Amino acid sequence: MTSVITILTDYGLQDGYVASCHGVIVGISPEARIIDVCHQVPTGDVRRAAAILAQTVPHMPPAVHIAVVDPGGGARRAVAIEAGDHVFLGPDNGVLSWAVQANGGARAAYELTNEEFFHRPVAPTFHGRDVFAPVAAFLTVGRRPPELGPPIPLDRLVSLPAPTSRVREGTVEGEVLSVDGHGNTQLSVTGGDLDTLGARPGGTLVVWLGRRHVTVPFRETFAAVAPGELVAFTDSAGLLSLAVHAGDASQRLGLPPGAHVRLSVHP
Amino acid sequence: MTSVITILTDYGLQDGYVASCHGVIVGISPEARIIDVCHQVPTGDVRRAAAILAQTVPHMPPAVHIAVVDPGGGARRAVAIEAGDHVFLGPDNGVLSWAVQANGGARAAYELTNEEFFHRPVAPTFHGRDVFAPVAAFLTVGRRPPELGPPIPLDRLVSLPAPTSRVREGTVEGEVLSVDGHGNTQLSVTGGDLDTLGARPGGTLVVWLGRRHVTVPFRETFAAVAPGELVAFTDSAGLLSLAVHAGDASQRLGLPPGAHVRLSVHP
Amino acid sequence: MTSVITILTDYGLQDGYVASCHGVIVGISPEARIIDVCHQVPTGDVRRAAAILAQTVPHMPPAVHIAVVDPGGGARRAVAIEAGDHVFLGPDNGVLSWAVQANGGARAAYELTNEEFFHRPVAPTFHGRDVFAPVAAFLTVGRRPPELGPPIPLDRLVSLPAPTSRVREGTVEGEVLSVDGHGNTQLSVTGGDLDTLGARPGGTLVVWLGRRHVTVPFRETFAAVAPGELVAFTDSAGLLSLAVHAGDASQRLGLPPGAHVRLSVHP
Repeated sequence: MTSVITILTDYGLQDGYVASCHGVIVGISPEARIIDVCHQVPTGDVRRAAAILAQTVPHMPPAVHIAVVDPGGGARRAVAIEAGDHVFLGPDNGVLSWAVQANGGARAAYELTNEEFFHRPVAPTFHGRDVFAPVAAFLTVGRRPPELGPPIPLDRLVSLPAPTSRVREGTVEGEVLSVDGHGNTQLSVTGGDLDTLGARPGGTLVVWLGRRHVTVPFRETFAAVAPGELVAFTDSAGLLSLAVHAGDASQRLGLPPGAHVRLSVHP
Repeated sequence: MTSVITILTDYGLQDGYVASCHGVIVGISPEARIIDVCHQVPTGDVRRAAAILAQTVPHMPPAVHIAVVDPGGGARRAVAIEAGDHVFLGPDNGVLSWAVQANGGARAAYELTNEEFFHRPVAPTFHGRDVFAPVAAFLTVGRRPPELGPPIPLDRLVSLPAPTSRVREGTVEGEVLSVDGHGNTQLSVTGGDLDTLGARPGGTLVVWLGRRHVTVPFRETFAAVAPGELVAFTDSAGLLSLAVHAGDASQRLGLPPGAHVRLSVHP
Repeated sequence: MTSVITILTDYGLQDGYVASCHGVIVGISPEARIIDVCHQVPTGDVRRAAAILAQTVPHMPPAVHIAVVDPGGGARRAVAIEAGDHVFLGPDNGVLSWAVQANGGARAAYELTNEEFFHRPVAPTFHGRDVFAPVAAFLTVGRRPPELGPPIPLDRLVSLPAPTSRVREGTVEGEVLSVDGHGNTQLSVTGGDLDTLGARPGGTLVVWLGRRHVTVPFRETFAAVAPGELVAFTDSAGLLSLAVHAGDASQRLGLPPGAHVRLSVHP
């Protein structure tokens, strides 16, 4: 049993919504340790939330993780998924799926139906406060996932399509996985892909954007190039990122999340 | 005695101001549990802060609540008000009044004059750090409100006018109570008002804005309509809210806080 | 030994970066008390971070302070500096220097080279998560600064030039030290400088901006003037600030950080 609860939402920080979730948790579990992962996910951006969660959880101690980015509102199941040392709580819309997968896949899943664990009356528009927060809190004071509701067959959980990369004929194809708050453009291209390709820090990559291409220095960090210049580096999640030192690469390159990209090593 | 302290301000998050308040609290009360309610209240917007506080406190355990939105600076009393299981600290400008009222009204009030509890020297422009934070901290380590300064007659406390609604002749009149960070427009119209009116989720409301009117579907959640469409729902504070799914209703309808609105049920 | 850790960065709040640092800390030091100083320092603005840190630390209990604003990336030493009751961790680029100086100067300094204390593998672009956060955490569970790496001669630490002020012939010359999130323009002019000049709250200052000048009322707080009007006051850090009540003085006056300003008392 852990006492750590993390929270990831698109609630923003201009209201008392996040605080209400904290209040509900502390009322049930006075010793809970709450870590706010991020509350400024773009409204309804499930994919962005899934990426943040998957890349943050590896640095967390065993915890109960709440992720509420839920453009469909209450019209889906609320679930608890056990994976690795963690329990993930959220709508069954895929927001948890990349983190679950990165922790070895779901070991068990439950639908959150047991109202004994809810903060009542449950507001249809605020399951974060009234369902996920109290359920998380109870899991830190000795209650167990099987008490939360009926088990869900693991193959019925909703998953986001996994971002893919493919190396062939001297190029790697991938997509934009995520764009962070600085405009750094993270690709679904791993350090392993780059090794296969023969790319080495110090060299130069060719990045194909449809028919256009740009050449980009491949370095250890963005700071290896002058401010305003493009650079590629293996980022803190182990993925290839395109950045502009002190600038916004996503905007510069016209690469939104989901855009397809092809890379090769500059001869 | 509680160890929970909540803080609500318009300090923003671009500076170290909020952290200084935390530092002062932790220096006095190492075990205090601090919940940040919100620090992005629009500068000096006492009414918005009062609404956030009143709607957040019901989900908090017994606590000491600091609310510092203080456009008049130090030219007012600093007060502690006991209501329900809570102690509220702030300037006596009405920012606490809706939360106090929602907790059964003031049971006792004191002017904060006892400098023993201040973080000195007191900066005239930073009572949050130098008056309210340390006073809150001392209340979590055994000191009691009557020690803070002389009692204030309860009828001398400053209150904001309570938002009102009135049902007559098949319409309900109210006003915009608050607009949240997503543009959701919360009216001073309660679930009870809607019952009296005979409005039911699934039906349609007519919203009168001066001479114009719009018809708005009344649903359980904003997600019941397509993105970009208007919807009315009973929100997580039990009040009628007008929203645009994935949009900004306040902007769309031209309804700022305080605007008057009249509603009827569409036949 | 303290259990308090503060964190100051330019990571922003739109990603999981800050949370990853929290996660690493809590994994090592479950009882650590973390205070987020600010994460919205303008990207790479070392001087702004240095000012926030120096002005926040006086209100903190003994703590380990992390400050990561690091436009040069990993191409500098990572250091721990002991000063007063505090340990400061950050890149050796001057970001710590004003806080260290305000705490009596460095008593000892160490280069962070002992990888036993790192969160491995260390990402070249995320020393906040992989170097500074875990080192801070270990310092709250009994490890000591000398274990972190070799001592650094104190005169080899990088310092920012200290902001200066000079009183002569009835004027005081200074510079803009920092502009806060509200546009308040803090000068390197102390209360002592103003005393020497004979300036008293209630009087009027003449502020010279190159050849132009404006007359500004000198008051106890910004709220002493009408909204929209300029005012000078001794701020919560004991320095002279120029403000516009409910406005942005830096913009109004064209005074960015570093700009030179000359003041005299209006006869």
